[in-house]
Amino acid sequence: MTPLFPDEPRGISVSTAIPGPRSEALRLRHAAVQDARTVHFYQHARKSRGNYIVDVDGNTILDLYGHIACVPLGYNHPDLLDAWRGGRFDWAAGYRPALGIAPPAEWVGIVEGALSRVAPRGLPNLMTVTTGSEAVENAIKTAFVRLARRRRNGAAPSPEDLALTMLNRQPHTNDMKVISFEGAFHGRSLGSLSATRSKAIHKLDFPAFEWPVVAFPANRFPLDENAAYNREAEARSLDQVTALLDADPQIAAVIIEPIQGEGGDRHASAAFFQGLRRITSEREVTLIVDEVQTGAGGTGTFWAHEAWDLPEPPDIVTFSKKMQLGGYYFRPELFPAEPWRIFNTFLGDPLRGAQLEVIIEVIERDDLLGNVVRTGKTLVRELTSLVGRYPGLLSSARGVGTYAAIDVRDPATRDRMVKALQQLGVESGGSGDRSIRFRPALVFEDRHVHEAIDRFDAVAKVLA
Amino acid sequence: MTPLFPDEPRGISVSTAIPGPRSEALRLRHAAVQDARTVHFYQHARKSRGNYIVDVDGNTILDLYGHIACVPLGYNHPDLLDAWRGGRFDWAAGYRPALGIAPPAEWVGIVEGALSRVAPRGLPNLMTVTTGSEAVENAIKTAFVRLARRRRNGAAPSPEDLALTMLNRQPHTNDMKVISFEGAFHGRSLGSLSATRSKAIHKLDFPAFEWPVVAFPANRFPLDENAAYNREAEARSLDQVTALLDADPQIAAVIIEPIQGEGGDRHASAAFFQGLRRITSEREVTLIVDEVQTGAGGTGTFWAHEAWDLPEPPDIVTFSKKMQLGGYYFRPELFPAEPWRIFNTFLGDPLRGAQLEVIIEVIERDDLLGNVVRTGKTLVRELTSLVGRYPGLLSSARGVGTYAAIDVRDPATRDRMVKALQQLGVESGGSGDRSIRFRPALVFEDRHVHEAIDRFDAVAKVLA
Repeated sequence: MTPLFPDEPRGISVSTAIPGPRSEALRLRHAAVQDARTVHFYQHARKSRGNYIVDVDGNTILDLYGHIACVPLGYNHPDLLDAWRGGRFDWAAGYRPALGIAPPAEWVGIVEGALSRVAPRGLPNLMTVTTGSEAVENAIKTAFVRLARRRRNGAAPSPEDLALTMLNRQPHTNDMKVISFEGAFHGRSLGSLSATRSKAIHKLDFPAFEWPVVAFPANRFPLDENAAYNREAEARSLDQVTALLDADPQIAAVIIEPIQGEGGDRHASAAFFQGLRRITSEREVTLIVDEVQTGAGGTGTFWAHEAWDLPEPPDIVTFSKKMQLGGYYFRPELFPAEPWRIFNTFLGDPLRGAQLEVIIEVIERDDLLGNVVRTGKTLVRELTSLVGRYPGLLSSARGVGTYAAIDVRDPATRDRMVKALQQLGVESGGSGDRSIRFRPALVFEDRHVHEAIDRFDAVAKVLA
Repeated sequence: MTPLFPDEPRGISVSTAIPGPRSEALRLRHAAVQDARTVHFYQHARKSRGNYIVDVDGNTILDLYGHIACVPLGYNHPDLLDAWRGGRFDWAAGYRPALGIAPPAEWVGIVEGALSRVAPRGLPNLMTVTTGSEAVENAIKTAFVRLARRRRNGAAPSPEDLALTMLNRQPHTNDMKVISFEGAFHGRSLGSLSATRSKAIHKLDFPAFEWPVVAFPANRFPLDENAAYNREAEARSLDQVTALLDADPQIAAVIIEPIQGEGGDRHASAAFFQGLRRITSEREVTLIVDEVQTGAGGTGTFWAHEAWDLPEPPDIVTFSKKMQLGGYYFRPELFPAEPWRIFNTFLGDPLRGAQLEVIIEVIERDDLLGNVVRTGKTLVRELTSLVGRYPGLLSSARGVGTYAAIDVRDPATRDRMVKALQQLGVESGGSGDRSIRFRPALVFEDRHVHEAIDRFDAVAKVLA
């Protein structure tokens, strides 16, 4: 079979510790200016290819992590490089525009073309920004505008309201709220961080809005053996949401990830999300589905929420990461009545948007979603088999498409496992306290699964 | 004299209304997906050159606004295009990395090279992000970490603190505060927006932290005729800051722009900023100088605060706009003790950073700061003369470098003036209620000043 990515390296090849001496030398230089403690290694950007990172020490590393789920086509996909070299992006080479003031004509083509082709069903409108956190901030703001408009019932704000606004003391506004779920990650700016519930270290010492949090159902795997438990957990979570919404008319939005990405790859059923849509819809509360990590194909559909067969679409779907720029799609009725309410200087980056256009074309032409579905089946099957071989060490193999994870015995062992895999040339990352997550590129194929599982097996033998 | 920008258009040339029919046709298409109400016109990106925008209707427009102060070298500077075509950015062409996880080796070179050469004196450390708002959010977070560390006196947070953190109810944290100034603009995400005080429409319906606001001195021009008034206004403002800091140990930071950019081009004296530095320094309160709009040369020094001769540096200086990516420089003692406290996925954009490296090289080689100082003198002199010719219409010509403004009789006339200038081929923008701001590129020269003033004069004749 022809590989989806031509001329990839033959496979993993490791000749130094990872990070190696050249990475550590770079880290020393880097750390004189920036925080370099979080860096896994330094990458040789041009030599990296497809699913393989080449680091500055010459190691060829199979990438399951994708720069925290940001690499849709692998490294240096020929279509991206051809577009670059062929001049397709030249209109974006000579300055960075404010897209809300004087956008280049080409931007309109991208927006009405590729970006509209991948719009979630029922959400034809689009706001572009630069990051996932900024996407969430503006999605939440859109929900607040909607609630305030309904409450004012079409009336203009009074002069007194406007004066108090400038003092951060608007009546009935500072206690508007967003519900999020235990384990959620929605970003790190102070608004989005108030909805983030993944780890205390992300939130410690930062003022937060006192918004409510509800239990995420936290499904047990395998799903068929735990159906009754999971159904009950999901019902309890929905009951909590309902109770909060009925008690507090100041709740503007409910925000949720299709699969909790930082919180430990926690899944919920389609029925749960259908219920959440029903509850919020009946009460005209904005449902924000945060697809920053799940969006752009990793689950086998372009958007993870497509798999839920919702009675009606979410109100807002946020994105970033694999999409290369941030933003959100939304229902037409959420369009703010006045311009400038939801606005900023850059409103995204047309150059990253132009690259995204190419990425979407390749996803369509090469049926990369079909590949993700096929590879995902192999991946979850192999992870399940791995768990079967090391039952004291590993558990809860799970995944939708190649958006997959396993749990490890305890947090310390998980960290050791990630480190050991790294030494064998496999780049992975944790999620939650004791999961290892898979966020490979959409060109991840069966042979990469087998190469990865081979290394997992070798490490598990030692740690079991 | 050789022009700083080769082969610019000879001058303004207008053949349609602005926006013209092609712009309006694009707006219709654009508006089907995005909010296009704020768009001035659609730009022909490749034909635009130097200080001149070419729009899709073929008009050649002199640009005083620079996409809200985002265009350092004008449009399609040959050095930027040569670097692009010559392959200098090819390492950044094939994927978008998470810079905190596996940065390309080239990133270290940019950070320790150009980005360190322009570091403000005393602030060798750097955090990069993508936008000004994100820069401010993280600068504020850094100040909160500092205050909390001092309050905990080296002790670790208790398990109870960490548990309450996950509920957004940390003791002594939600009432930590940032002081900002009336008229300030620091961004639109919910944290930075709580410090923004420019216009009610930016803040209406969005929950805000109840942080204090103090008067900005609002200097009267000309400065020499109003010296006593201004001194008193500045003293009152500093007294307010002092009183707040002494009354409330929960104030973590004071944030201020060197010149209020959105708030109406409001200036204060070096003595005022020296006083602010003294007051905050004595109380170990973090002083954040927000140079998102003033940074990167528009005032004739790379950073506007360099002109103040401060007794010691600010603690943090934020940037974005002309810098092409966001970020902030900070003092080494503000480096968080733990990694991951201040972090996000992208941590900026290496491609925009690579372009910035070229931009900084051109600024240095062509002495563009010297040009800004020279042109700025001409500009303010000509604006002053214009005000003298139309005293009932115009007032308060002011500027540092080419970061300049004039006031117009009233808001409605200001808006008419901006529109009329646009029809004559001059792109400008308002600031505050009734100012017109100049934020030209660093290659703006005397002949561009004269061309602009000629159009201002023509419009003023009609409106006076």
